[in-house]
Amino acid sequence: MKFRKKIKVLNVKIIKNTKGDIFKTFNKKNIIFKNLQEVYFSSVKFNSIKAWKFHKKMQLFLTVPVGKVKFVFFDQLTTKFYSITIGEKKQKILIIKPKIWFGFKGLGKRKNLIVSCSTLKHNKSEILRKKIKEIKYKW
Amino acid sequence: MKFRKKIKVLNVKIIKNTKGDIFKTFNKKNIIFKNLQEVYFSSVKFNSIKAWKFHKKMQLFLTVPVGKVKFVFFDQLTTKFYSITIGEKKQKILIIKPKIWFGFKGLGKRKNLIVSCSTLKHNKSEILRKKIKEIKYKW
Repeated sequence: MKFRKKIKVLNVKIIKNTKGDIFKTFNKKNIIFKNLQEVYFSSVKFNSIKAWKFHKKMQLFLTVPVGKVKFVFFDQLTTKFYSITIGEKKQKILIIKPKIWFGFKGLGKRKNLIVSCSTLKHNKSEILRKKIKEIKYKW
Repeated sequence: MKFRKKIKVLNVKIIKNTKGDIFKTFNKKNIIFKNLQEVYFSSVKFNSIKAWKFHKKMQLFLTVPVGKVKFVFFDQLTTKFYSITIGEKKQKILIIKPKIWFGFKGLGKRKNLIVSCSTLKHNKSEILRKKIKEIKYKW
């Protein structure tokens, strides 16, 4: 599979409401829920970087309902990068196939919240990690 | 089923991290994911009240990762109320069985975000609604 095809970007449907909007994110059209293992939240502080991770098997579904987060993907074969910034003012769903290095940085000054759905239970043997400096990128 | 037994309150597991904490919320222990239909986000502004709703069949799983939200439940049979306030400083998961009236109010001054998992697709015939004033409660 080509590098860029490993990351899908979908829109979030926003239902406007004067008392507070509603955001349709994950549903049966974009996730096979019967393979879903967990829904969890990660916060990342302003200017903090969490990198790098590589999932051997796990597929991830992410969205950023609060704040702003930059995601960077790295392909070992082509040594190419792909980056995308999403957040409450640009709500998107990212679908990340396995076998891709990625990391992310908090860009919102207050709170940056990532909501993730994963199709495999967290398992240390399934995740590879590198230190930030091991893949050189101008964050 | 007794009124109070229709609402379950579970803890969120927090994994501390200097770059931003991780919150374990919904997993196979508390949701049968194969019945899951969607994961969606609702925001509710400071001092806004969204009430009242009643689900005939749908079971809801809620959490408030950002801000603070007061939930109020009303039992028609006993005319009793039960309320609970959860939010980023008191992270809990609420499991709400069907056939209970409920509403909620935004208490956080900035952003109040509810993340919900539902076991049935949104369907107007499954939801009953009342205006705020139809069930008298001192919010």
